[in-house]
Amino acid sequence: MKKLMLFFTLLIGCFLLNAQDEAVRKSDSVMIKKLFDHHLTASSSYDWLRYLSNEIGGRLSGSVEAEQAVAYTERELKKLKFDRVWLQKVMVPKWVRGTPEFAFIESSPGVTTDIPIAALGGSIATPALGIKAEVVEVKSFEELAALGKRKISGKIVFYNRPMDPTLINTFASYGGCVNQRYSGAEQAAKYGALGVIVRSMNLRLDDFPHTGSMSYGELTEQERIPAAAISTNAAELLSATLALNPKTKLYFKQSCKQLPDVESFNVIAEIKGSTYPDEFIVVGGHLDSWDIGDGSHDDGAGVVQSMAVLESFKALNYKPKRSIRVVLFMNEENGMRGGNEYANQAKRKGEQHIFALESDSGAFTPRGFSFDTSVEMFQKYQKLEPYFEPYLVDHFTFGGSGADIGPLKSESIVLSGLRPDTQRYFDHHHSENDTFSEINKRELELGAAAMSALIYLVDQYGGQLSGVN
Amino acid sequence: MKKLMLFFTLLIGCFLLNAQDEAVRKSDSVMIKKLFDHHLTASSSYDWLRYLSNEIGGRLSGSVEAEQAVAYTERELKKLKFDRVWLQKVMVPKWVRGTPEFAFIESSPGVTTDIPIAALGGSIATPALGIKAEVVEVKSFEELAALGKRKISGKIVFYNRPMDPTLINTFASYGGCVNQRYSGAEQAAKYGALGVIVRSMNLRLDDFPHTGSMSYGELTEQERIPAAAISTNAAELLSATLALNPKTKLYFKQSCKQLPDVESFNVIAEIKGSTYPDEFIVVGGHLDSWDIGDGSHDDGAGVVQSMAVLESFKALNYKPKRSIRVVLFMNEENGMRGGNEYANQAKRKGEQHIFALESDSGAFTPRGFSFDTSVEMFQKYQKLEPYFEPYLVDHFTFGGSGADIGPLKSESIVLSGLRPDTQRYFDHHHSENDTFSEINKRELELGAAAMSALIYLVDQYGGQLSGVN
Repeated sequence: MKKLMLFFTLLIGCFLLNAQDEAVRKSDSVMIKKLFDHHLTASSSYDWLRYLSNEIGGRLSGSVEAEQAVAYTERELKKLKFDRVWLQKVMVPKWVRGTPEFAFIESSPGVTTDIPIAALGGSIATPALGIKAEVVEVKSFEELAALGKRKISGKIVFYNRPMDPTLINTFASYGGCVNQRYSGAEQAAKYGALGVIVRSMNLRLDDFPHTGSMSYGELTEQERIPAAAISTNAAELLSATLALNPKTKLYFKQSCKQLPDVESFNVIAEIKGSTYPDEFIVVGGHLDSWDIGDGSHDDGAGVVQSMAVLESFKALNYKPKRSIRVVLFMNEENGMRGGNEYANQAKRKGEQHIFALESDSGAFTPRGFSFDTSVEMFQKYQKLEPYFEPYLVDHFTFGGSGADIGPLKSESIVLSGLRPDTQRYFDHHHSENDTFSEINKRELELGAAAMSALIYLVDQYGGQLSGVN
Repeated sequence: MKKLMLFFTLLIGCFLLNAQDEAVRKSDSVMIKKLFDHHLTASSSYDWLRYLSNEIGGRLSGSVEAEQAVAYTERELKKLKFDRVWLQKVMVPKWVRGTPEFAFIESSPGVTTDIPIAALGGSIATPALGIKAEVVEVKSFEELAALGKRKISGKIVFYNRPMDPTLINTFASYGGCVNQRYSGAEQAAKYGALGVIVRSMNLRLDDFPHTGSMSYGELTEQERIPAAAISTNAAELLSATLALNPKTKLYFKQSCKQLPDVESFNVIAEIKGSTYPDEFIVVGGHLDSWDIGDGSHDDGAGVVQSMAVLESFKALNYKPKRSIRVVLFMNEENGMRGGNEYANQAKRKGEQHIFALESDSGAFTPRGFSFDTSVEMFQKYQKLEPYFEPYLVDHFTFGGSGADIGPLKSESIVLSGLRPDTQRYFDHHHSENDTFSEINKRELELGAAAMSALIYLVDQYGGQLSGVN
């Protein structure tokens, strides 16, 4: 009889627990719906982005625009009356593009066609009068090595491996190509090339050259050669022209240069946790951008979405249990100084960071989140997917988060990235075509809403999601 | 011992069956990957759409452009050497817009602001000199009824209920608003209104008026009043102006008219089934569009995606078991004559249609499919989701397909619709902003690839998916 009593007690206990779970899940769902409603009707994100993009513009590290963006976002965050808003000093590289680049294809002596070109970030200038030389087209470093010094010395190397159109995730296509841009000059210089031209990292055929960071690796200053990207249409033209006449020459001229580091800032706002003030949750994006567009998708969107997460908590009068910080990182594009500095200071102060979320993949319709954590913990996060199903943001993937939060990585933190639809991203990325006019307000807001929902859930259950089952 | 033998035989049988299932699933997955690869690298869909949109343009039923589109798609389908390509005659209404509409707000006598306006499809003209009258703003038919004849007679009714921004599926927001456009004139005429102005069905604030079909219901010709849409920005301006001065007047003039029906065509191409030639699978979109854009999203996309399904089967040398038809329907927008005629003829000829798929929701990234069938059959179709997961088109939903295939509905057919991302659709729908420049090539191709994969699976397993478990 006693056993039977115990059995029934347990049964009822289980039932009550389940009923309680159910009630909690329901109240979480109600909160998440409120967050989405808020973002879709009353968010400041689109207006903030309009200001960053149209009133300020491209925000390359060390530029006046980057400093304006620091001041603007600090001012806006202060208006929202968070517990703390401050600037975190960080020294950043200052690379400047100089006068506009210029390039043409010379298919036969005196017969030229101008093509759109942009110096790669970190590249040196050409000589003042530019470079004109024959062109060697390659698709890989292996091909380059096979050609060797004899065929390459004194020429311009043209990297023309296109992004793979059959990959559904365009970031994977990008990953399969970007070594041409990042290390192309370093590799080609070894064989005596005079300069390097890279096909833009873009799946579409168009007329926008796409810049981006590059590195000379271990090359001395004397060994360095100038590097630039040309548009995909120009790459097709150059390749076709070379097929007709292998003696075709390319001319290009650029006057970019690297100046001494300058002072800049991460911008940080914090709501102090009511129950666990010493546990920190970070949500962020990067404030700097390239200079040739206005950086709306990369990464103005991530900046304003992160600000909007805290704005929505304030608007709904939600008091987080844990301390939540918006961090607007400086210098993601060409140095990662902001991300490194934030992580260093967090470590130095012994701040316990439990979760960090970055949005740095454009303002397109959110499809899910990625998680950089253990397999076991990822499986636990997958249990949150049902909360996101009504909003079609339920595609959770294993691995990857964001460049700026990467340095926070440790065993005790879960890193995450917002994963929007990727199809259009590289039409804009690092080009003149990354502008506010290409932002869809609802898509931007849906991303911020999804981020708010995830941050809310982590705040409720902790970075290890205790109690989620 | 015998029993044991039987047990092992069964066990091995099950294992072999499972292994076979597994092998079949794998070969299906390989075929689907080939289809996606084909569409992302070698499809004609984007070029076809460029021609339909830029060389032909808006294809309103009965227009020269609609006939050009019939001739063009017939020609292109014939080039692909399907078993049969033919035109199916259908009489269609011919409504013409006439000279451009014109409208202004008169906030006080002589103080006017021009606003963008477009007559609704099917509306009558205003008197030659236009209509100028005071305006009554309402949000619903209930509000209209409450105001009654005394307040409405002699005035222009302005329907200004916006699309609900908190719904994630924007088609649901559209559904909650479109009665203002479709029945607004019929309702307002009963109370003696002189004309009707409708806020455009658009979630965004912009300057494009969005047209679309409307009906006078049972009203006699004498009772009918002119109806037009104004842009969302204009609706906001008119509403704000009315708040300041309720005596504000609106002027509008339009010269549209309904002409006698004319002959047009559905365009049909067929690959004959190798095993079950008498079972028909339909894939289609509608060839007509509104006149003020070029109908790229609505529904040039669906047309070229459907054509591309058969093109991909040809290119991969896939011989379908069942007969597959591409049907390009005429007159979806203002009459549905093509869809009705196709279904009538299918019925008359006793053709056994087992599955029909329509793409008519724009060329955006595909997210999944909807299915109009029984709950049990829908659950069976959900078992196909894993095939679509690698392509992120795995969101299958219950209910709804496409307007043109609706008339085929019966107990023995499964109807389905491609479901792309909906966030941007109503920025373009029925407006001057539905143009080829707003089409992303990859998104268009991914939709066609997903459609091909679904048609392939239905061809393999039949409309009832026998053998799928």
